[in-house]
Amino acid sequence: MSFRSRQGFGRVAIFGPGLIGGSIALAIRRHCPGAHLAIWGRDPSRLQEVERFVRPDAVHADPSKAVEGADLVILCTPVGVMTELAAAIAPHLGADTIVTDAGSVKSRVVEELQPFFGDRFLGGHPMAGSERSGLAAARADLFEGAACILTPLPTTPGEILEEVKDFWISLGARVTTMSPADHDRLVARLSHLPHALAFALVNLVTESLPQGSSLLAGGSFRDATRVAASDPVLWTGILSENRVEVVAALREMSALLEKVAGQLEEREFETLLDFFTRARDHRASLPLPSPASTLGTADLIP
Amino acid sequence: MSFRSRQGFGRVAIFGPGLIGGSIALAIRRHCPGAHLAIWGRDPSRLQEVERFVRPDAVHADPSKAVEGADLVILCTPVGVMTELAAAIAPHLGADTIVTDAGSVKSRVVEELQPFFGDRFLGGHPMAGSERSGLAAARADLFEGAACILTPLPTTPGEILEEVKDFWISLGARVTTMSPADHDRLVARLSHLPHALAFALVNLVTESLPQGSSLLAGGSFRDATRVAASDPVLWTGILSENRVEVVAALREMSALLEKVAGQLEEREFETLLDFFTRARDHRASLPLPSPASTLGTADLIP
Repeated sequence: MSFRSRQGFGRVAIFGPGLIGGSIALAIRRHCPGAHLAIWGRDPSRLQEVERFVRPDAVHADPSKAVEGADLVILCTPVGVMTELAAAIAPHLGADTIVTDAGSVKSRVVEELQPFFGDRFLGGHPMAGSERSGLAAARADLFEGAACILTPLPTTPGEILEEVKDFWISLGARVTTMSPADHDRLVARLSHLPHALAFALVNLVTESLPQGSSLLAGGSFRDATRVAASDPVLWTGILSENRVEVVAALREMSALLEKVAGQLEEREFETLLDFFTRARDHRASLPLPSPASTLGTADLIP
Repeated sequence: MSFRSRQGFGRVAIFGPGLIGGSIALAIRRHCPGAHLAIWGRDPSRLQEVERFVRPDAVHADPSKAVEGADLVILCTPVGVMTELAAAIAPHLGADTIVTDAGSVKSRVVEELQPFFGDRFLGGHPMAGSERSGLAAARADLFEGAACILTPLPTTPGEILEEVKDFWISLGARVTTMSPADHDRLVARLSHLPHALAFALVNLVTESLPQGSSLLAGGSFRDATRVAASDPVLWTGILSENRVEVVAALREMSALLEKVAGQLEEREFETLLDFFTRARDHRASLPLPSPASTLGTADLIP
C-alpha cells in the first residue's frame, strides 16, 4: 500500500523545518492534500513561523509527540543532530512506521541510525537545495525534476523501499537507489567538490588580486561561485561528515589541474582540445535544467 | 568630442559579427540610432544573415571597404586573426580613426597590433558573453551592467581613451582601465580559471563515476559547469594565448585544493570554517547580477 494510494490517510512527521524540511512540507501540502502533517522544531519560538508558512496539522517541540501515529518520519535536521533525535523518537514509533532522512551523507547516517530503527530506516538524499538556507527559502516545487537518491541495505524490506520511493515520486522527484558508500563517493564529486571549488575560487580571486577585482567578474565566475554564498557552518559539517571521500575528490581535482597546467605549459594543444571537447560533449548530454535551477536556486543540500 | 556627443554622426566598423560583435552592433542600434554601422565578415555567404539580424548600414567581405570613413573600428574576431586583419585595414584608415578590440587577452593583442596602428589603438575587453557563440546568441543588452576593461598604454592619448570609454558607457557597460599585463593576470583568474575548472570538473565526474552519475547532479554541479558547454576550439585558443598566466592560476588553484584537502584530512575544522566564512563574505559583497547573468547567459568571452 503506497503513500499515494492511501490518498489522504498518510500521517507524516517532519523533523527540522529548514530549507529541505520546509520544502518537503510545502510539497506534501501541494501534492498530498489529505496527508496529516506534523512538524517538529527544536526552537518553540520559531514554530509559529512554521505554522504561518506551512500550515501543518500540528507543530511540536517534543519529539515523542511529533511521531505519534506517524506512518512516515522524515529527518531533515543537520546530520550531527540525528542520532540524538533517533534516541528520543525510537521508543514512540508504531510497528509499521517508516523512518527516512534527507541528509547529505549516508554511510555515517545509516550506521548511526540503524541501531535505533533497524530495517524500518531507509537513507535518502534529495539532490536539490539552494545556497540559501532556512524556512524562508523553502519552495513547494524544489524537488520537481530533481534526483533523489535512496540507499537501501540488503536487509531493507522491498515494501519499505517502494513506499519511500513512491513518496518522493509524488513530490516530483526522480528516484535512484545505490549503497550508502556509493552515494558518499558520488556526492563527494557531484556536490561537495563543486562547493569546495566555489569557496576556494572566491578566496583565490579575492585574496590574490587587487581589491575590487571580483567586481569585474562576468558570468563564469559568478556561476562558478554561486554556492560559495552557502552557510559556512553547514558546509564545514557536510565536508567533515564525508571527509574521506571529499579529501580524495579534492586531491583528484588538484592533480587534474596540475596535469592541465603541464599540458598548457608544454603547448600540447591537441590534448587540451580533446579534453575540452570531451567535457563539452559530456556537459551537453545533461538534461535541461528544471525552471528552479535555471533561476540558480536548485542545488544539493543536506 | 565624444562618440555620444556626436549623436548620429559616428561611423562604426565592426569586424567579426559573432556573439560579441553582433551584440555590439545590436547595442549600437539600440543606444546610438543615428550611428552609421558597417560590418565585416569573412564569409560572404553569412553576411545575409548579418543583414537580416542586425540591419547594419553596410556589410563587407573586403576589410578595406569596411573601414572607409570609419570613426571607430572594433575588432571582434578571434585574437589569432587580428594581426592579419590589422595588416589589411591599417593603410585604409583615416587620420582620426580609433581602433579597439574585444579580445579576451590583451598583452599579446596590444603588442601585435601596436606596430600597425600606433597609439590610435586601445585594447578593450567587455566582461560579458555566454557559453553559446555566434550571431544567433547576440543580444542588444549583453553589456548592460557588465564590466569593460580598457588597457591604455602610457602613450595612449587621453582623448582616445575618453572616446572609447564613452562608447562602452553608452552601451551600458561599467568601464575600468588597467595595463595589458594586469588585465591578463586578472582574467586568467577571474574568467579563464573558472572555464578550465568547469571543463575539468565535468571530466572528473563523468570519467571517474559510474555512467549516468551526472544525471543526478543538483544545481551546484550544473552551475559550476555551465561554461563547459563553451566552444572547445575557442577556449583552447584563449587559454593558449594567455598561457603563462593561466598556467600560474591553475597551479595556484591546484595547490589551494591540496591545502584544503590536508586541512580536512587533519580535521582542522576551525581553519576550514574560517576559509569558507571568508569566501561566503567575499561572495556576498559581489553586486547583484544583471538580469542577463541571472538567466545564466552573461559571461566573459573573447
